[in-house]
Amino acid sequence: MLSLVPKPRSDISELAAKISARITAKSGPPVVVRSVGDFVALHNTDVFRGLSVGFVPTMGSLHSGHMKLIATARPNHDVLVVSIFVNPAQFSPEEDYEQYPRDLEGDLKKLETESAGVDVVFAPEPADMYPKNPRAIVPSVTVEPNFVNGLSEAACRPTFFRGVATVVMKLFNIIRPERAYFGQKDAMQVSVIISMVKDLNVPVELEVVPTAREADGLASSSRNVYLTPAMREKATILYKSLCAAYDMVKSASKPVKASEVEDVVKRTLLAEPMVLGIEYISVASVETAQEVETIQFGPEAEPVLVAIAVKYGGANLRLIDNMWMDNQKHA
Amino acid sequence: MLSLVPKPRSDISELAAKISARITAKSGPPVVVRSVGDFVALHNTDVFRGLSVGFVPTMGSLHSGHMKLIATARPNHDVLVVSIFVNPAQFSPEEDYEQYPRDLEGDLKKLETESAGVDVVFAPEPADMYPKNPRAIVPSVTVEPNFVNGLSEAACRPTFFRGVATVVMKLFNIIRPERAYFGQKDAMQVSVIISMVKDLNVPVELEVVPTAREADGLASSSRNVYLTPAMREKATILYKSLCAAYDMVKSASKPVKASEVEDVVKRTLLAEPMVLGIEYISVASVETAQEVETIQFGPEAEPVLVAIAVKYGGANLRLIDNMWMDNQKHA
Repeated sequence: MLSLVPKPRSDISELAAKISARITAKSGPPVVVRSVGDFVALHNTDVFRGLSVGFVPTMGSLHSGHMKLIATARPNHDVLVVSIFVNPAQFSPEEDYEQYPRDLEGDLKKLETESAGVDVVFAPEPADMYPKNPRAIVPSVTVEPNFVNGLSEAACRPTFFRGVATVVMKLFNIIRPERAYFGQKDAMQVSVIISMVKDLNVPVELEVVPTAREADGLASSSRNVYLTPAMREKATILYKSLCAAYDMVKSASKPVKASEVEDVVKRTLLAEPMVLGIEYISVASVETAQEVETIQFGPEAEPVLVAIAVKYGGANLRLIDNMWMDNQKHA
Repeated sequence: MLSLVPKPRSDISELAAKISARITAKSGPPVVVRSVGDFVALHNTDVFRGLSVGFVPTMGSLHSGHMKLIATARPNHDVLVVSIFVNPAQFSPEEDYEQYPRDLEGDLKKLETESAGVDVVFAPEPADMYPKNPRAIVPSVTVEPNFVNGLSEAACRPTFFRGVATVVMKLFNIIRPERAYFGQKDAMQVSVIISMVKDLNVPVELEVVPTAREADGLASSSRNVYLTPAMREKATILYKSLCAAYDMVKSASKPVKASEVEDVVKRTLLAEPMVLGIEYISVASVETAQEVETIQFGPEAEPVLVAIAVKYGGANLRLIDNMWMDNQKHA
């Protein structure tokens, strides 16, 4: 038999004992696993046997959106694993891989609080995840979401979706969770993961968690600090425009045309003088990311995502938001 | 939570009961599972719980090579699953997908014998494996073995290696075996699967089974029927040339150069008048399929495959063979 598994670097029975103690205690700092070989070796112990494992993948620099994913996952599982890995394969050469913020110490501190309740943090090194070439733009074997080819977002970031699909497949195979949690904010990424799981029959459940929002509805974003108080006050217009569209979809007595949704969103947005221009209003299938003409009804209907990007408040300021029009609820 | 799993088409508790009965009886015809949804639903029952599952993927038309894979796997597992699926995604448009021989009835009859001992046959339809488009040349999400790009075999069959990697990933995710068995005869395919498992951290063990051979050493092949008795008698020269090279490697007291291996093979082949020409002699890494300059020694050395193709006996007749030079044995 071929030996294809990287060797563990730690004492695995000691590591398993620490994790078991954390799972039982349900409090205290998470146990940090630093290598692929260590995590894979844990599956040969009893540490996860018979337990439900939930998984939240992140690139670190944890903010309220990540904490919402963690809080959503926590009550559903016996064990909660969070990965912190800035994935080189999803950055193109001209993107900010080297500059991307990394703060493992700060992230671990955030996860130490009682309310976070994370049992294990998986934080491997790039050379451990991609031993052949940690900075390869195209790793030697990849998962390709071919369906995104030709879509505008994919054309802007050719490396991104391959890199995301490949690293998520690797993380799923290493961690082997029952369910993984993704933020709806990264809508296109969610489409890619849904298609990967469906098309390759990946045995992991997915839960898409609604975007974390401020009290007034503004989507949480590290970019919100750029807004002046006056801009900040009116920035809820994006959320309001999506709510107006969703209200229309929910109250409709027949399938709604995408153009009707676009009209409602546009009218609402342009009534606000801070909105300097609309970049796009997209009404697309959540799964295929293809634009749809109609939002269908009923339990068999594919969920549709309405995504918007607007120039807002001043030069070079741009806000985005999106909402999942869950048409299954009003079947 | 998203529902991404195809629905079962059969009564799953009845199907699980049949499979349990077959596993306990250790004889009788295998239970045939005809849909992806059915097999996936079996994992929610106890039928495989705590049992070791072995897996032999095939495209059917079972011959002695497949029976050798099955015989190798059988004693290692509680449950043995064989898939029979002619995978459209690995045939290019000009290849023989429609003509490829299919004989599920005959295959099942072969697997009914006591000696075969197969518990479950998984035989899905193309529309069930590729619901979006059963005849897509490039499915919407694929596994890409990028490392084969530029190798001559990959240039000849651009669709083949993507199709193989994608369908094997799907079958692994549906069947979730502990170990899968592949024939060494399809050497390049083995390289692709090894790289996929390593690079994407796929939690499946691989066992590469030596090529099935006739009593005199000729590699079993459906093409051997083309040989006249006189040709057939001398056709062992391919095997003999590989044995001569392996003898040299095993008896060497230092790493052996690829050129020395090629010389021994060439000299042995060309001494036989039936050999009309040598197409190639390849000395390559089993894992990366890249040609190597030296066959290294020791437990850390990568296994090397020597593969040959010769024009033999008459016009349009071609024989191939290969041998894994397991240099770890003489460390």
